[in-house]
Amino acid sequence: MELNKEITWNEQGLVAAIAQDWKSGEVLMMAWMNAEALRLTLQEQRAIYFSRSRQSLWRKGEESGNVQRLRELRVDCDGDTVLLQVEQVGGVACHTGRRSCFYRLANSAGELTVTDEVLKNPDDMYGSKA
Amino acid sequence: MELNKEITWNEQGLVAAIAQDWKSGEVLMMAWMNAEALRLTLQEQRAIYFSRSRQSLWRKGEESGNVQRLRELRVDCDGDTVLLQVEQVGGVACHTGRRSCFYRLANSAGELTVTDEVLKNPDDMYGSKA
Repeated sequence: MELNKEITWNEQGLVAAIAQDWKSGEVLMMAWMNAEALRLTLQEQRAIYFSRSRQSLWRKGEESGNVQRLRELRVDCDGDTVLLQVEQVGGVACHTGRRSCFYRLANSAGELTVTDEVLKNPDDMYGSKA
Repeated sequence: MELNKEITWNEQGLVAAIAQDWKSGEVLMMAWMNAEALRLTLQEQRAIYFSRSRQSLWRKGEESGNVQRLRELRVDCDGDTVLLQVEQVGGVACHTGRRSCFYRLANSAGELTVTDEVLKNPDDMYGSKA
């Protein structure tokens, strides 16, 4: 069974990609991959996404240094999502400087609370353009 | 901060939803929610998705009994994904009868191996139409 044949690409030619910390199990982020990003992720054993806003490959950590080293890659039953177990270099996955992008918790009334602290200053990760 | 105002709905009016086992941390599945599904998920404290193939609400476990009780709901930084911590009733999230939908592991050459066993017979979960 080959991964490429099992992927169900969406209308934009993308597959959803979830990154999970391989040690803690924390879900760090969700992003997208095109065929090239998926191929390069396996080849280079690091997470490479496709940026929908920039419409180009996004080598996670290229600017921030927060590379995600690949430990494992899985595909789901209907082939529209891949799950990456990653080693998050620098301990920060989110562009806000937090460990995970899922730092806002909803209560049953739909009110949000920020639960995670900022570990790195985004200005330090990306420079003043961030 | 209100959840509804922080969600970035896609062109189909949907947001991605990741379900994670609240105890083991295992990522069980990825599906989609429309505004009503998200509202009902919080209100009923169980996972209710929107089925893109059926174009209707999908009360997870309605047929199979494999309900997902909600323990926690988070939203990511750009509001296009929610993360659910769930208690997976019956221990099976996947329609194939496996615990997780991510039961196929890719090696670096892109070859897939099935790593998880079938815990329930899909025919028993859904009847002969499965």
